[in-house]
Amino acid sequence: MIIPTLDDMQNAHKRIKPYVHETPVLTSSYLDELTGARLFFKCENFQKAGVFKARGASNAVFSLSEDMLEKGVATHSSGNHALSLSYAAGRRGIPCTVVMPRTAPQAKKDAVMGYGGTIVECEPSTSSREAIFAEVVAKSGAEFVHPYNDPRVIAGQGTCSAELIEQVESLDAVIAPIGGGGMVSGTCLTLSNLAPNVKIYAAEPEQADDAARSFRAGHIIADDAPVTVADGLKVPLKDLTWHFVSNHVTDILTASEQEIIDAMKLIWKRMKIVMEPSSAVPLATILKNKDTFAGKRVGVIITGGNVDLDLLPWLKN
Amino acid sequence: MIIPTLDDMQNAHKRIKPYVHETPVLTSSYLDELTGARLFFKCENFQKAGVFKARGASNAVFSLSEDMLEKGVATHSSGNHALSLSYAAGRRGIPCTVVMPRTAPQAKKDAVMGYGGTIVECEPSTSSREAIFAEVVAKSGAEFVHPYNDPRVIAGQGTCSAELIEQVESLDAVIAPIGGGGMVSGTCLTLSNLAPNVKIYAAEPEQADDAARSFRAGHIIADDAPVTVADGLKVPLKDLTWHFVSNHVTDILTASEQEIIDAMKLIWKRMKIVMEPSSAVPLATILKNKDTFAGKRVGVIITGGNVDLDLLPWLKN
Repeated sequence: MIIPTLDDMQNAHKRIKPYVHETPVLTSSYLDELTGARLFFKCENFQKAGVFKARGASNAVFSLSEDMLEKGVATHSSGNHALSLSYAAGRRGIPCTVVMPRTAPQAKKDAVMGYGGTIVECEPSTSSREAIFAEVVAKSGAEFVHPYNDPRVIAGQGTCSAELIEQVESLDAVIAPIGGGGMVSGTCLTLSNLAPNVKIYAAEPEQADDAARSFRAGHIIADDAPVTVADGLKVPLKDLTWHFVSNHVTDILTASEQEIIDAMKLIWKRMKIVMEPSSAVPLATILKNKDTFAGKRVGVIITGGNVDLDLLPWLKN
Repeated sequence: MIIPTLDDMQNAHKRIKPYVHETPVLTSSYLDELTGARLFFKCENFQKAGVFKARGASNAVFSLSEDMLEKGVATHSSGNHALSLSYAAGRRGIPCTVVMPRTAPQAKKDAVMGYGGTIVECEPSTSSREAIFAEVVAKSGAEFVHPYNDPRVIAGQGTCSAELIEQVESLDAVIAPIGGGGMVSGTCLTLSNLAPNVKIYAAEPEQADDAARSFRAGHIIADDAPVTVADGLKVPLKDLTWHFVSNHVTDILTASEQEIIDAMKLIWKRMKIVMEPSSAVPLATILKNKDTFAGKRVGVIITGGNVDLDLLPWLKN
C-alpha cells in the first residue's frame, strides 16, 4: 500500500492545472438560515467532465510513463470515474477502456463515449464488475486506474480541498459524500496536513451505509450490491481509503432516500445548480444533524452534476 | 415619458448594491465549439429572487420617497417581477401587492408569498391583468412599479450589463431574451453609453414574436395572449422600452418552442445550471444563426432560474 503524501497532492495540483477548473464556491442565505450554519458549496459539478473525479483521473493519466501510453488506461466505475478517465485520456490522446454496470445512467454512458472511451458492460454488482474487468486488463495490457483506491487518484482529489481552503477562510468543517472514499481520502490528505483543525465529515445513504458501519466496527465492511438513488456511492471502502477515513474522519452521517431526494430538489430550487443525488447527501445529513453544524463555517463538496435529466428522482413516484 | 439616463443607471448601481448579487459569468468550451462563437453567460439565475428583475425592483423600491412607504408598492407580472418586487419590498419592510395570472407557475406564486407579497389573481391575458390591477391600485393607493415600462426599473436592469462589461473584455455583442423589453432596454441604456461598439441582439419565441414584428414594422405591435413555454416573454413592448429597442437594437431573432426546449436542456446538461425556458431563447437563436455570431465574443444574459422543477418542458411529451 503506497500512501500518497502532501508532496504528491501538491505535485498533482501543478500537473493537472491545465486540464481541470478551479471550481467556484457558492453560498445561499436561504440554506444558511435553514441550517443555522454558514455553508460554502464547492461546486465540482462545474468541474471538467462534470465531476471532481476529473482531478484524480487527470493526475493518473498525466503521470503515466511514456512506455504505457500506447496501451492506455482501463478502469471499472459506476460512471463518473469512467467518464473522467475518458476525459483525461482524451486530453492526453491515449486509449481508455471502462467496465460499467449495464444499469448506469444513459447520460453517463453517452458522456464516456463522447470523450472517446470504450465501454464494456457488467452486472450491477461489485463481484461482476471486478471479474469482467480482470478479463479486460489481461487482454489489453492497459494501466489500471482504480476509481479511488489509487494513490495518484487520491492525491488528485486532494486538490479540491486545497482550493477550498484558499477560497474560504477559517472553515470549521468540511463534509463530502462517501462511496469508495476517494474524495474523502483526498480531503483527509490535504486538510490533515494544511488545516488540521478543520473537522472532516462524510455523508452516506442509509441504504448504502457500509462506510458508516465500517467506521463504527473499526474494519472494512463491504456490501455487494446496495440500492440507492445516490448511484455514485454504492462502492465499498478499500485499504487505502480506509487508511484515511479511519485516521482522519470525525464522523460518518447517513440520510434516507427521501431525505437525499428532498435535499437535492432543495439545492436545485434555491441555488439553481444541477447536481447529482450523491452530491445532496451532505446537505441531507446537515439538515438531520443541525446541532453538530450550528454556527459553524462548513465546506460542502458538491461532487458532481452528471444526472439524467429525463429521470429526475422526485418525478419517479 | 421619462427616459432614464446613464446617471440614473449609475445611481441605481450604488443604491441596489447591498441588495443584489454581482452575478458570475460562466463559459462552456462545449458550447463554444458547438456555436463557433465565444459565449459568456451572465448568470442572473443566481441573482436574488432567482432573476435579473431583482435589480430593477430594488432600484424602484429603494428610491421610493418616505411618504409612500406605508402604502407600499403594487404591480402586475407573469411572475418574476412579482417575486422580485416582493423581495425588494421585504428588504425595505413595506407592503407589496401583485396581480398574477392564475396560470403562473406554482413555484413563482410560492416564491412571491415566501417573500411576504400578497397575490391577487387575474386571467392569463394582458387585458384582464390590466383591468384587475387598476382596481387594486385604486383601493390601496400603492405605488405602481411597472414590470418594465418604468425608468427606475430600466435603470436597475442596466446594472447587469454594466457588470458584464467589467467582467468580460472586448465583447462584440450581447444578446438577451425580450418580452416587454426591460432587460434589453437596460442593456441598451448602459451599452450605448459605455460600450457603443457592442452590438445588441434580442431573442424571442416565434410564438410570441410581437417584438420582432414591431421591430420590422417600425411601431409597437401587441398580442393579447401568446402561448409559449418561455412564460416570462409573453408581454408586449411599451413606449419606453420601444424607445430603447427601436434606437439601439441590431436585430431581434426568433426560435421555435422545440428549439427553445432543446437549448434549455442543453444548457442544464452541459453547464449544470438551472434556468428558465426564457433564458434559453438566446442560445436557441445563436444556434440558428451561427454565421452572425461565428468568431465573435458574445455576452448571453441568462435572465432567471425560477422554473417549476415538477414541470420541466422536455418531460411533457
